[in-house]
Amino acid sequence: MKPRVIRRIERAGAEVTQKLGEYGVATVHEAQDRTGLMKPYMRPIYPTAKVAGTAVTVLSHPGDNIMIHAALDVVQRGDVLVVALVSDSTDGMFGDLIGVSCQTHGVLGLVIDAGVRDTPDLIAMKFPVWSRAIHSQGTVKATPGSVNVEVICAGAFVRPGDIVVADNDGVVVVPRETAEETCRRSEERIVKEKTTRERLRNGELGLDFHGLREKLHGMGVEFEE
Amino acid sequence: MKPRVIRRIERAGAEVTQKLGEYGVATVHEAQDRTGLMKPYMRPIYPTAKVAGTAVTVLSHPGDNIMIHAALDVVQRGDVLVVALVSDSTDGMFGDLIGVSCQTHGVLGLVIDAGVRDTPDLIAMKFPVWSRAIHSQGTVKATPGSVNVEVICAGAFVRPGDIVVADNDGVVVVPRETAEETCRRSEERIVKEKTTRERLRNGELGLDFHGLREKLHGMGVEFEE
Amino acid sequence: MKPRVIRRIERAGAEVTQKLGEYGVATVHEAQDRTGLMKPYMRPIYPTAKVAGTAVTVLSHPGDNIMIHAALDVVQRGDVLVVALVSDSTDGMFGDLIGVSCQTHGVLGLVIDAGVRDTPDLIAMKFPVWSRAIHSQGTVKATPGSVNVEVICAGAFVRPGDIVVADNDGVVVVPRETAEETCRRSEERIVKEKTTRERLRNGELGLDFHGLREKLHGMGVEFEE
Amino acid sequence: MKPRVIRRIERAGAEVTQKLGEYGVATVHEAQDRTGLMKPYMRPIYPTAKVAGTAVTVLSHPGDNIMIHAALDVVQRGDVLVVALVSDSTDGMFGDLIGVSCQTHGVLGLVIDAGVRDTPDLIAMKFPVWSRAIHSQGTVKATPGSVNVEVICAGAFVRPGDIVVADNDGVVVVPRETAEETCRRSEERIVKEKTTRERLRNGELGLDFHGLREKLHGMGVEFEE
Amino acid sequence: MKPRVIRRIERAGAEVTQKLGEYGVATVHEAQDRTGLMKPYMRPIYPTAKVAGTAVTVLSHPGDNIMIHAALDVVQRGDVLVVALVSDSTDGMFGDLIGVSCQTHGVLGLVIDAGVRDTPDLIAMKFPVWSRAIHSQGTVKATPGSVNVEVICAGAFVRPGDIVVADNDGVVVVPRETAEETCRRSEERIVKEKTTRERLRNGELGLDFHGLREKLHGMGVEFEE
Amino acid sequence: MKPRVIRRIERAGAEVTQKLGEYGVATVHEAQDRTGLMKPYMRPIYPTAKVAGTAVTVLSHPGDNIMIHAALDVVQRGDVLVVALVSDSTDGMFGDLIGVSCQTHGVLGLVIDAGVRDTPDLIAMKFPVWSRAIHSQGTVKATPGSVNVEVICAGAFVRPGDIVVADNDGVVVVPRETAEETCRRSEERIVKEKTTRERLRNGELGLDFHGLREKLHGMGVEFEE
Repeated sequence: MKPRVIRRIERAGAEVTQKLGEYGVATVHEAQDRTGLMKPYMRPIYPTAKVAGTAVTVLSHPGDNIMIHAALDVVQRGDVLVVALVSDSTDGMFGDLIGVSCQTHGVLGLVIDAGVRDTPDLIAMKFPVWSRAIHSQGTVKATPGSVNVEVICAGAFVRPGDIVVADNDGVVVVPRETAEETCRRSEERIVKEKTTRERLRNGELGLDFHGLREKLHGMGVEFEE
Repeated sequence: MKPRVIRRIERAGAEVTQKLGEYGVATVHEAQDRTGLMKPYMRPIYPTAKVAGTAVTVLSHPGDNIMIHAALDVVQRGDVLVVALVSDSTDGMFGDLIGVSCQTHGVLGLVIDAGVRDTPDLIAMKFPVWSRAIHSQGTVKATPGSVNVEVICAGAFVRPGDIVVADNDGVVVVPRETAEETCRRSEERIVKEKTTRERLRNGELGLDFHGLREKLHGMGVEFEE
Repeated sequence: MKPRVIRRIERAGAEVTQKLGEYGVATVHEAQDRTGLMKPYMRPIYPTAKVAGTAVTVLSHPGDNIMIHAALDVVQRGDVLVVALVSDSTDGMFGDLIGVSCQTHGVLGLVIDAGVRDTPDLIAMKFPVWSRAIHSQGTVKATPGSVNVEVICAGAFVRPGDIVVADNDGVVVVPRETAEETCRRSEERIVKEKTTRERLRNGELGLDFHGLREKLHGMGVEFEE
Repeated sequence: MKPRVIRRIERAGAEVTQKLGEYGVATVHEAQDRTGLMKPYMRPIYPTAKVAGTAVTVLSHPGDNIMIHAALDVVQRGDVLVVALVSDSTDGMFGDLIGVSCQTHGVLGLVIDAGVRDTPDLIAMKFPVWSRAIHSQGTVKATPGSVNVEVICAGAFVRPGDIVVADNDGVVVVPRETAEETCRRSEERIVKEKTTRERLRNGELGLDFHGLREKLHGMGVEFEE
Repeated sequence: MKPRVIRRIERAGAEVTQKLGEYGVATVHEAQDRTGLMKPYMRPIYPTAKVAGTAVTVLSHPGDNIMIHAALDVVQRGDVLVVALVSDSTDGMFGDLIGVSCQTHGVLGLVIDAGVRDTPDLIAMKFPVWSRAIHSQGTVKATPGSVNVEVICAGAFVRPGDIVVADNDGVVVVPRETAEETCRRSEERIVKEKTTRERLRNGELGLDFHGLREKLHGMGVEFEE
Repeated sequence: MKPRVIRRIERAGAEVTQKLGEYGVATVHEAQDRTGLMKPYMRPIYPTAKVAGTAVTVLSHPGDNIMIHAALDVVQRGDVLVVALVSDSTDGMFGDLIGVSCQTHGVLGLVIDAGVRDTPDLIAMKFPVWSRAIHSQGTVKATPGSVNVEVICAGAFVRPGDIVVADNDGVVVVPRETAEETCRRSEERIVKEKTTRERLRNGELGLDFHGLREKLHGMGVEFEE
């Protein structure tokens, strides 16, 4: 694949993106039939980190962050940087200076399948990051990669312009084309869960209103008194 | 082993359980000769999480949470759910809805050798969870397992009714039969450690009052000036 | 290597040590040409933990903390304990009592390539620890090791008296001999980064003022409109 | 995504598939610009295992192998089963009986991002398998999944009908559309490497005929006599 | 738990032990309802390693092999040593000399949740070992443990006298009391699998004779032509 | 640290190097008081791999093998390449072509704290390699590093000219200055172990001739009849 930086991408709408962020990762993941979730090793640098934005993707060589700089040239307000690597690395490819640049250009957060550094500053700046490691190990700027190509990041397929939702539960990717549908289904889940929550608070059991008691009996599970 | 849900179990007493919770994991583990400790990959979802309760055990198939629902049918106030799996998994088998149900029925916390999700909600609800992962990946309700059988959870042997003590140091299991003895020995440690702490604050060295200086010499360790 | 405790070591100066602590791990690591960094599995027990001190090194057998007690006999105000093991272990070799002893004798923090316990107390005491695990598993006092010999701790080479700087970004070791030089170069970085930060805040791109645009073209990266 | 079994897929040609198999994983991976490689945790069950075939993909729930059975209904001679999971698992989803069925229907091998069992039999049968684990843990047949949809397996994107090449170096996936091109470029590499090998055998250095000596000097690397 | 060496244990019969060894790990594990299996990180030191014997259990401190020596005092012909640790370690607690001693006293093999060394010799001696690591790191003889107490080894519960079956598929433990029953059920599986294998060789599909086609339809899986 | 290639190093003698290779890793490691051992994740690409040679060290950027090419310019017959990285990586930095070059110039083997590829060819060539991974992922030649500087490789400190001994038990490093002493002590161990082996074959127990029976009693271990 020839290295390239694609400047113009089609982005999901701002409104649907914002709504999905409000629903949160667990709900959105369910609403799109449990697809698009990144591996659980992706953790936020602070527990209240939360973001929803449109993906600008970066494909980098391990130990090299030149393409992250290139990505800053094509971002728009409301984007989230999604950095994938051609092979596993924990090097700290992103620090507070690029974080400042991100905030200046309206980038809302970073999802990186590698390391991050300057975390005391990034936390103070309230710039949310999900990464596989926190590591001060710096990187070079020597090997070409691409910006805004399709990538696999932490086990999830991400295309430029897709919606990325992230919180303390992890990171989920919503394809641009199905964002409205996923939003609608998330809303339905929220409504339905509200009722469920009420019933559970009143002491009802999931065992009963999901009809699991019969299912368990059917599967041969004995309830011993 | 035939899958089954055992409704009646003998539980450790509430008073001894509460006391052990006050002593904390590290002390209790020492007091019972360093037995019953889970592996260190079991981490709380928030640093101040702390619990002591009687174990209701669950043995589940990976990726399947039907038996957690079944367990809610047999819990009592003061219980802690302990979920073991027949093989390793990080799937998020437990979320905020089951958390609500747990709180409604007096379950004090969850120890799960798998994943948990809806952590922003669970943290807000102050429902303490120790897990091997935070993961939004949902589960099915299709394969039978058991409730209140003996399980091995994160390397520790747990029987229904045993006491589970958990805090930021990890999770320890206290057999029902030896709970009083462990409580008494924990109390002794606390008292003894209070004196030790005073002496250490006064500048005395463990090297001296544990008699380690002679031991080191005996082992051939040279102190070079 | 014969086990031994070396009492007198040459320590880096207090002033340079303190300054390096203010610069932080990421800056110091860069300033000494990216050397001396520990592996990223070394994590602080609370996110705001921060320390800079002179290393008193300990080489221990796994599951045995007798040499940590021995080290307390030779520490001075301003030291940081650096505990390396002859083989991998997550046992909790250090708890709140030794923590009290450390604080009494002016030890500023602990870096340990093993486990730590009594973390609720250590956090309350604001005693900063970087470790590979939090684990209640206690240890014995039976096998000799050494104090103040050269060690490899979490992948980094540490000599007694070297400076250890640690924060949420990890742990870096600065050789005593090059501490002043590293300090000066850190200061230069800070100054330079201040300017860079201003320019980035004004919207300039690293791509431009690092001259990366030409570099990318030279490497054959195409910018597609 | 609705669970489904797609019966008719377009497969890469047998001839190009066979040739790619002869070139081997390392060469093919290079020839397609270092794309399509699975993570290095995928290991063969015996060191001389080697295969090249067209992918029939399976997407399974962890701990459940019903969809592997479904896949056997749609395979053709020359296929390789590629099993991906919705979340991480090491359960032994494949054993010697399904192996017999595979061989009967002309399936050449298995690539599975989970566990495999009955390895003494599979090795005796010379049925090559690449997996993330060897584990006897059996699975259920309870949860739907899909056959012949696009999957991400061990970090690589695989579409039904793509070519899978595997040997002791790992597993690489070649898109059907670029198979001829990759084959041609692999052939070129083989030819070129033959010459290189001759020159190296004669004592020439890569440093010289790749022009690296100048490059190193340009990067500031000093050769000290 | 007071450290102790229990000399007299009740062992499973030699005949049933031998038969279970012939059935192999995967079959035996299935025959006892998928219980008793160790974690998949336990690997043999050579691929054709195979053993079945009665467990003499050892509980050791990490980095200390004194209790293995103690165990040699109580073994009988036909035993397998099962070594569990109080916490995780990869130290090489067992080498060729103890291997010679084992063979002299009729011990058939070793299962150790730690490291092993002198593997070139052990392989040459055809002494089968399953371990979590191969590591030359030696151990001390300083800390008490127990022999022939109940242990948890690599996630499995093992009691002295239980049967241990191990091959390239891993390690499974069969309780003495259910050994005959497990043997009988293993035999049934072997017979049944023989028929299944024939049918599969004739081209029948598991999908059909397990009735999975209807099940898949019932679960909503569509077969697309 | 300025990147540099040091051409002239002092090497350990050929005779002592060869002898240490005959003793093997486990013996040599013991003979030098259990120092110099690499982490157990370093595994040979074939089980009978065995080497002893003088270290030519390489310090590389992850994903970059230019310095391995540079090292070939300074090797001599009898050397072993030892490749360390500035941060963790599994990329396949070494393949059969460099292997041919190594053999041509008398390099006896490779120890690399990263990945290796073309393993089918390297195994056929009988070129022994110890690595942390087998991975086809190729590397670039873009970032400077050093040859023949002191490195930490897989947790062990290695200086140019030191002796590297490797077999199926792992990799151990012997400092040049103590090689003769280590050789002598290895020889003593071999002689002593020969006697021990005889006694063990005659049925004596380590428990007895190491005097462990008394030691166990002294530690309070009870032998229950």
